Amino acid sequence: MAEQTQRILVLNPNSSGAVTESMRAACADLALPAGQELVFATLAEGPPGIETQRHVESVVLPTVAYFLAHPADAYVIGCFSDPGLLLAREELDAPSFGIAESAILAATAQGGRFGIVAIKESSIRRHKRTIGALGALDRLAGNRALDLGVQELLDQERSLRRVIEIGRQLRDEDGATVLILGCATMGAYCAHVQAELGVPVIDPAQAAVLQASRALVPPQRKVS
Amino acid sequence: MAEQTQRILVLNPNSSGAVTESMRAACADLALPAGQELVFATLAEGPPGIETQRHVESVVLPTVAYFLAHPADAYVIGCFSDPGLLLAREELDAPSFGIAESAILAATAQGGRFGIVAIKESSIRRHKRTIGALGALDRLAGNRALDLGVQELLDQERSLRRVIEIGRQLRDEDGATVLILGCATMGAYCAHVQAELGVPVIDPAQAAVLQASRALVPPQRKVS
Amino acid sequence: MAEQTQRILVLNPNSSGAVTESMRAACADLALPAGQELVFATLAEGPPGIETQRHVESVVLPTVAYFLAHPADAYVIGCFSDPGLLLAREELDAPSFGIAESAILAATAQGGRFGIVAIKESSIRRHKRTIGALGALDRLAGNRALDLGVQELLDQERSLRRVIEIGRQLRDEDGATVLILGCATMGAYCAHVQAELGVPVIDPAQAAVLQASRALVPPQRKVS
Amino acid sequence: MAEQTQRILVLNPNSSGAVTESMRAACADLALPAGQELVFATLAEGPPGIETQRHVESVVLPTVAYFLAHPADAYVIGCFSDPGLLLAREELDAPSFGIAESAILAATAQGGRFGIVAIKESSIRRHKRTIGALGALDRLAGNRALDLGVQELLDQERSLRRVIEIGRQLRDEDGATVLILGCATMGAYCAHVQAELGVPVIDPAQAAVLQASRALVPPQRKVS
Amino acid sequence: MAEQTQRILVLNPNSSGAVTESMRAACADLALPAGQELVFATLAEGPPGIETQRHVESVVLPTVAYFLAHPADAYVIGCFSDPGLLLAREELDAPSFGIAESAILAATAQGGRFGIVAIKESSIRRHKRTIGALGALDRLAGNRALDLGVQELLDQERSLRRVIEIGRQLRDEDGATVLILGCATMGAYCAHVQAELGVPVIDPAQAAVLQASRALVPPQRKVS
Amino acid sequence: MAEQTQRILVLNPNSSGAVTESMRAACADLALPAGQELVFATLAEGPPGIETQRHVESVVLPTVAYFLAHPADAYVIGCFSDPGLLLAREELDAPSFGIAESAILAATAQGGRFGIVAIKESSIRRHKRTIGALGALDRLAGNRALDLGVQELLDQERSLRRVIEIGRQLRDEDGATVLILGCATMGAYCAHVQAELGVPVIDPAQAAVLQASRALVPPQRKVS
Repeated sequence: MAEQTQRILVLNPNSSGAVTESMRAACADLALPAGQELVFATLAEGPPGIETQRHVESVVLPTVAYFLAHPADAYVIGCFSDPGLLLAREELDAPSFGIAESAILAATAQGGRFGIVAIKESSIRRHKRTIGALGALDRLAGNRALDLGVQELLDQERSLRRVIEIGRQLRDEDGATVLILGCATMGAYCAHVQAELGVPVIDPAQAAVLQASRALVPPQRKVS
Repeated sequence: MAEQTQRILVLNPNSSGAVTESMRAACADLALPAGQELVFATLAEGPPGIETQRHVESVVLPTVAYFLAHPADAYVIGCFSDPGLLLAREELDAPSFGIAESAILAATAQGGRFGIVAIKESSIRRHKRTIGALGALDRLAGNRALDLGVQELLDQERSLRRVIEIGRQLRDEDGATVLILGCATMGAYCAHVQAELGVPVIDPAQAAVLQASRALVPPQRKVS
Repeated sequence: MAEQTQRILVLNPNSSGAVTESMRAACADLALPAGQELVFATLAEGPPGIETQRHVESVVLPTVAYFLAHPADAYVIGCFSDPGLLLAREELDAPSFGIAESAILAATAQGGRFGIVAIKESSIRRHKRTIGALGALDRLAGNRALDLGVQELLDQERSLRRVIEIGRQLRDEDGATVLILGCATMGAYCAHVQAELGVPVIDPAQAAVLQASRALVPPQRKVS
Repeated sequence: MAEQTQRILVLNPNSSGAVTESMRAACADLALPAGQELVFATLAEGPPGIETQRHVESVVLPTVAYFLAHPADAYVIGCFSDPGLLLAREELDAPSFGIAESAILAATAQGGRFGIVAIKESSIRRHKRTIGALGALDRLAGNRALDLGVQELLDQERSLRRVIEIGRQLRDEDGATVLILGCATMGAYCAHVQAELGVPVIDPAQAAVLQASRALVPPQRKVS
Repeated sequence: MAEQTQRILVLNPNSSGAVTESMRAACADLALPAGQELVFATLAEGPPGIETQRHVESVVLPTVAYFLAHPADAYVIGCFSDPGLLLAREELDAPSFGIAESAILAATAQGGRFGIVAIKESSIRRHKRTIGALGALDRLAGNRALDLGVQELLDQERSLRRVIEIGRQLRDEDGATVLILGCATMGAYCAHVQAELGVPVIDPAQAAVLQASRALVPPQRKVS
Repeated sequence: MAEQTQRILVLNPNSSGAVTESMRAACADLALPAGQELVFATLAEGPPGIETQRHVESVVLPTVAYFLAHPADAYVIGCFSDPGLLLAREELDAPSFGIAESAILAATAQGGRFGIVAIKESSIRRHKRTIGALGALDRLAGNRALDLGVQELLDQERSLRRVIEIGRQLRDEDGATVLILGCATMGAYCAHVQAELGVPVIDPAQAAVLQASRALVPPQRKVS
């Protein structure tokens, strides 16, 4: 096993390199077992952000195409809408993980009830479908959106204050005992939010990368 | 963060050092982020194995007592019945994980439906309560017991053949696309079973350790 | 209302005109209220048949693009995997219906438990996701596939015999009191199967067209 | 098929001819396939309205008796409590539909979440039982009653204003994306409410008649 | 409390006095608190047995009429289809119990999973609706019918043998750990079946009478 | 049966004799069938009250040990957290009942939705787990805590006023139609609360004793 490197490929299905870097940073403190390598990529043809059902659908085929063209030992779809996960699981020989699914399951593994900090109100119904399909709706404390304009989102300090404000509402009004940052871009805020609010905060990219890493120990073989 | 070591304490609540070693071996190939340390311990006052509800109940208080006496940054209860998990979550300042819960959630993160290889028929109803509380019963393909006598279990070769036989039934007759070894003692078989059956096999200790590791990145602070 | 025609557009998202004609024939005996018009179309760029998750995903954007380019008062997606339904509902000003959803709900409206005659084994898990999302899994008596080769499917007489054989199993072994033909292509068999087996048989295209027609009485206005 | 007329019998199980006429008007714009005929009837021995559990129970036997004495090819029970539906399905050779069941399923076919405009607070628990039995409680946005006195209900203009007021609350406060008028008597308001609120409004009589019509294409044979 | 007798009225809604006597005998060994009195009655206008949905519906109004004419402090509907329970709860000032509901809940209170011995195959779907409405379907081990002809049912020895045979199947093949005799007439067999099969056997009349008795301690007052 | 006394042993797993007496008083008005005897006991080594998960876990083994040392024909665990119920059911030859389970099922048998008056906020999550495992969450109207200090709880008049206040909120704001006093100590208030609020009030000790009593008629034999 040691002689052969195993690659976990994390694809950001939007075209914003900054989001990819955000995920890379969020995973920087993770260690991988000997022989496992973490590779990040950005889907050049993706939209700048994935905010609508159209964005989601438009990256399904390119995401899996990218995976097929860049074979790895495990795949992570780096968008909280998990676009292409069903197709990846049907076509790829190696295990595939969505960061939303993994984050929700990591929250569940921690006990208690989780709150999700969403970027936009409109993505909440997508989140709910994922949670429902996982049978975890009764552990959802709440799902609240930042509802910031583009300019405000670019202002990191302001964004962080808003994430903390929303997280506090989830904790105090909705009873969340653990928070999920419901977007691949918020990894940088994770530690600050946790320090400020005193509840565990889950970065979805981390959660998925660790599931992928676990799936490769022992070495994952092709599933017939 | 690097200057201060974070410890993940995995406690085997039975008194069999061999089981503890089995978990240690199963996690040997895992890497931990810089500053994270994995510590294994055996509960001296535990029974040799945890096979009945009495065994489960008898280790609840000693397990949490051990944790209280050996503070760590995250706790893993290394028995597939997750004894003491509710109490640990109520009393400990750091996050606590059960290997059954974490394994079931890791199986879910992989998609498809899971089968559980149990040691004994009588533990299946305990497994079902855990799965039900996680809302995952509809992803349970099957739960089958090895039903081997003590002598046969000591015979590793024979045990492995039986695990593979049961795993094959779960895969072929019950439709499982991923297997969980439903005991802390079967880690050694994980790679063999996966190689033989061509489906992902989840070692529960690995699954829980990785959840604990994730919970410590960023550094976990006391939850008030 | 009478002065202005309302169009229900049924799109076959595969490129086989024969399938489109099959749906048209299945709906021929339906009447539409005065002022409603039923239009059928074939998605030229679709695959000849929709049999895999890739086929499903590949027609999502073209299906909605077709609808956007051919505005109607209600839209029906004529494939039992309901490809593009979520996107259509987010983007189109008029109501959108999937033939799988509508068929399952029509079966439910009839009371009892339903059986689905699928073309291929591999589509059954897609059906189950749809049924689960509708909360109707407890009314599913069974889901069985014809499992015929291409040549056999072209042989209509042979296909019909097989549909009846599978329908009989669903009725007698699974306890189905109503059958759904789980494909847009089987409309021609509907009456024969019903006559032979004596249980109601639901053609999914009919079911969706009638839901669309109902949604237009009274005249559907743009939902803001 | 064309040579033999098929009758869909819609029975209003209360004795108010005005309610029967309201359903007839609501279905006037529907078209039936060649050979299908829609017949409306009023249950002379029914109470003037069906507002209590006693009213419901008191019309169960008379409703089915009426159907047995007036054989048809499909039966619709024209009251939002679906009285007698279980008995009809056990005794009648032809398919039977309840307007509540059909309306709830039509709302589901449209996607989103539905709100129900009830006449009286006390009927809401009956509605909930029906919705629960259909597995659709998670798509119920809300259920609100008009709570008008008899005199106010007779004042059509006032009633319509109240229906719109309640519908607006269901849309804006409860998040309903589609409305169901939870009574056979409100068909006349359907178009106005839809025009005013910009969300689809489902008339339950229409919904059931269309399910019945669909069940007769192809011609329904006796289910052994 | 002692100075005023409280009456629990158990009505057999069929006209067979033998069934009433069977319930009286089944409850003979029960004790009532001081001041509570158990009264049995037979619904003269009921059918000889309640075997079809028509039988059920036909006794709904007479059952509640009997209760209204014979006021008591608690009411028990002595038929395993619980006819009239919804109406009784809406109209009566005192609490009402169905023997099916009470038996299913008593089985649940005992832990494990229950099996139901039904008289006829056709009543099983009625049982399932009751169980489903109580949220107890996952504790149903099985539901099997005696399927005896009238002559055979009159032969008590033969009936008992058949009840034991069916009970054994429920225990051994379906995994039932407690049995419910799914009819008011089988009380006489209760002790024999329990002695023979070694699993608890629940008589539904007993279960309901005890719930009624409990509801009267402390003295039940009119619920406004 | 009459010649041999059957004992129902109710164990208060906390060491407060006053709580045991409270249960004895609550059951004083119950009658037992001839030959049944009700015995109350106090677990000397229990904590003064059971308020935390630690209290619960700490009495699991002593509770079952007490039962093993004092064999009876049926066992009742007299604490609303049902400590040791799983173990009792696995080890004891006679049926075991928890007062929380029995109270929740008695509330269900009464129809409508129940509210629970809890002593402390922290016990509510334990209650919810029990309710969830029984499949009864949809019948839970609300769960509210008295939140009184020790001194206030000792003041019976003040406690009663608070129980009534909370019960009124459950009835009026949460829609409860039946109340459960969620603690073994509140039996004395039962009649007063019921008289004051006009809704049925369930004492959990009574509910469990009656289930135990029912299980002994006919005489309970050892379940193999």
